[in-house]
Amino acid sequence: MSGSPLRLDILARCTQSRARVGQIHTPHGVFHTPAFMPVGTRGSVKGVLPSQVAATGAQILLNNTYHLMLRPGSELIRRRGGVHRFMGWNSPVLTDSGGYQAYSLAAMNRVDDDGVTFKSIVDGAEVRLTPERAIHVQNELGADIIMAFDDCPPSIDPSVHEPNQERLRNATARDGRPPHPGGKRGYDHVARLAVANERTVTWLERCKRAHTRQGDQALFGIVQGGTDLDRRSWSAERICQIDLPGYAIGGVAVGESGDQIAAVVRHTAPLLPDHKPRYLMGVGYECDIVEAVRAGIDMFDCVLPTRNGRNANAFTRFGQIRLRNLRFAEDDAPIEADCDCYACDPGAHGWPLPGTGTSHGTFSRAYIRHLFMAGEMLGPTLVSIHNLRHFQRFMAAVRDAIRTGTWSGFFERWPVATRRTGTNPS
Amino acid sequence: MSGSPLRLDILARCTQSRARVGQIHTPHGVFHTPAFMPVGTRGSVKGVLPSQVAATGAQILLNNTYHLMLRPGSELIRRRGGVHRFMGWNSPVLTDSGGYQAYSLAAMNRVDDDGVTFKSIVDGAEVRLTPERAIHVQNELGADIIMAFDDCPPSIDPSVHEPNQERLRNATARDGRPPHPGGKRGYDHVARLAVANERTVTWLERCKRAHTRQGDQALFGIVQGGTDLDRRSWSAERICQIDLPGYAIGGVAVGESGDQIAAVVRHTAPLLPDHKPRYLMGVGYECDIVEAVRAGIDMFDCVLPTRNGRNANAFTRFGQIRLRNLRFAEDDAPIEADCDCYACDPGAHGWPLPGTGTSHGTFSRAYIRHLFMAGEMLGPTLVSIHNLRHFQRFMAAVRDAIRTGTWSGFFERWPVATRRTGTNPS
Repeated sequence: MSGSPLRLDILARCTQSRARVGQIHTPHGVFHTPAFMPVGTRGSVKGVLPSQVAATGAQILLNNTYHLMLRPGSELIRRRGGVHRFMGWNSPVLTDSGGYQAYSLAAMNRVDDDGVTFKSIVDGAEVRLTPERAIHVQNELGADIIMAFDDCPPSIDPSVHEPNQERLRNATARDGRPPHPGGKRGYDHVARLAVANERTVTWLERCKRAHTRQGDQALFGIVQGGTDLDRRSWSAERICQIDLPGYAIGGVAVGESGDQIAAVVRHTAPLLPDHKPRYLMGVGYECDIVEAVRAGIDMFDCVLPTRNGRNANAFTRFGQIRLRNLRFAEDDAPIEADCDCYACDPGAHGWPLPGTGTSHGTFSRAYIRHLFMAGEMLGPTLVSIHNLRHFQRFMAAVRDAIRTGTWSGFFERWPVATRRTGTNPS
Repeated sequence: MSGSPLRLDILARCTQSRARVGQIHTPHGVFHTPAFMPVGTRGSVKGVLPSQVAATGAQILLNNTYHLMLRPGSELIRRRGGVHRFMGWNSPVLTDSGGYQAYSLAAMNRVDDDGVTFKSIVDGAEVRLTPERAIHVQNELGADIIMAFDDCPPSIDPSVHEPNQERLRNATARDGRPPHPGGKRGYDHVARLAVANERTVTWLERCKRAHTRQGDQALFGIVQGGTDLDRRSWSAERICQIDLPGYAIGGVAVGESGDQIAAVVRHTAPLLPDHKPRYLMGVGYECDIVEAVRAGIDMFDCVLPTRNGRNANAFTRFGQIRLRNLRFAEDDAPIEADCDCYACDPGAHGWPLPGTGTSHGTFSRAYIRHLFMAGEMLGPTLVSIHNLRHFQRFMAAVRDAIRTGTWSGFFERWPVATRRTGTNPS
């Protein structure tokens, strides 16, 4: 695609998998891939200032179009100079299309061939989103990468009441987002998925035609199809016939098991063009990321680091720890011994703490637990910073493993990335 | 006092008032006076990391003994190496005695000649605080400056139901703290104040005897007496007969008018030793601070910058602005044009924002308003940082005005410090 605002340079390929290391050039600078994008839903990574986000190593952020279009409105952000300037982030930004939230967050939504109508979660007003409108809003927001508006039906049949389906529907989705609401009557799930798949192709063509900033915003198409691999093949073929700067796999991590996610990604990623960025939306846990990287995925986003951080759940190389737990009440160690984030090693960030005796300067688990027990805002801030840094360190290690082809050493160092059930990616 | 852990060097004196500029040496370093101390109630300045607090220019913090003794407990903090190490602040710290909160926050309290019994706001348990216990707890916390445990009856008679008294009792105190609860029957206010004044002297002697860390913690006595100037004289004389490294004026800014505060401070400050630090507890607004500085006060603390910051109220040289106001929705200016805080001028803190056209890089009022409307944590954080910097810039200007004796220029530059009613300090 000539004149694309985006360029992927592949710098190294794994000898043992489809994984690749690269860098993606955008109008607001470069980011290294495979990349993890923190989520700044409403134009802010919750509790973490943009300079602190940058200090964790993040090079690109995601903003949610749905939230920003409802409040403060995309026109207001356009008049402020776009999302970068509005939120104080001078590096790449990606916006989603708003479709996912229009389907999953709204108490009411009505979909037809032209678009979706839903009630605003801010003021209950009726809002209409079509491919043209979703692209117009994203043109106003001004992110470097914008996403197609697709039809996203529930991947799990909401009319079936098998115990397992029930469990999946009621469970919090793997990425912490609410699963699609279920329980509709008179609903033909297979027919609905077929319609959605067709519609997503038509809507992508409309998105591309509506896109007025093709010179400085890269539009990505989204492959859908749920857990049905034939449907994924059909969607990938049709979507990739439309020439775009990059492609994403959507409709994943909305309630399925890790094995189901892996199966879809292993099947679908190789169907996307090799020389363009591949983005797996809403994933996720370390083990899911590694599997997807090895299938050839370049970009990830997830709310896990900040959402779990706000709940005192800290990621470590060995798994999550819950800092509200009583066993940390007198623990002088940092969240993770060898972490270099501001919370674990403030000295490395120009803030030497008073150290006594054998301990080194750090915000201790004991102090952070106290902050959470007392309801102090610094608790969520410190653990969010640590978790964001965790995922950036993890991605740096992933890129290193790809370059050197040494996955066994990688899994020894990052046991959290080893899948507990099903196939082990190593 | 030989062997004092504290030393006040007076560097300059105002030619037009009793104000002085100095520096106070403590075991954790020096702070410049007149000084404003941000409040870190539970071992954290709400929403602001210690490195960010230091970047505002604050050189000393206040922690509340009452809150820390209830949670996480002073023994736990002692085992962590004290408050400095616990909260990651390697500069001077002051702790209050817990008395004020024991009286004002508890649903129940019972005072006798030996101490106070109250219910914990954390778990409802019955807690006993005596002069010995308050000092023991502060010895465990390990602050550089610790405060005497005093008897603090309501300064306003809780049994009188005049409209004005009622108003004062129900109003939020000037410093944002709740006023003393009222409405007790069979209560003799004058007798109660007399007993409290006597008791405070006896309790100070007990505090001094109980103090086991006189070599590295400086105990300050507190002059009480409400708005009765004769009682203040009596208290100042008796309290200052007890040789201590510094003295405070307590029982102020608990519901009185600005004129009442000024009258008490102008009367009492000159009664305290000239060569030792003088601390006016819980004050306050800029105009109150200036009046007190000119009466000879060296130290101030208040929750205003952070409490108001959390509510979107930003301090400026011209008064407070409410950033939730609709008129800021499309305002690209920083909170205050010539402020150098992280929120107003992130470039000065190593974080250059994307600037376009005529505007310079800043977190705009429009963005900060959006953060508050959307309930994002960064709103409170950014405005708290700005407000903390406001008070530090203000104190630097106060110190400059003292050195140069140019108060008229000072009030032109800081109109917010001009008292609207009553006497003007300029």
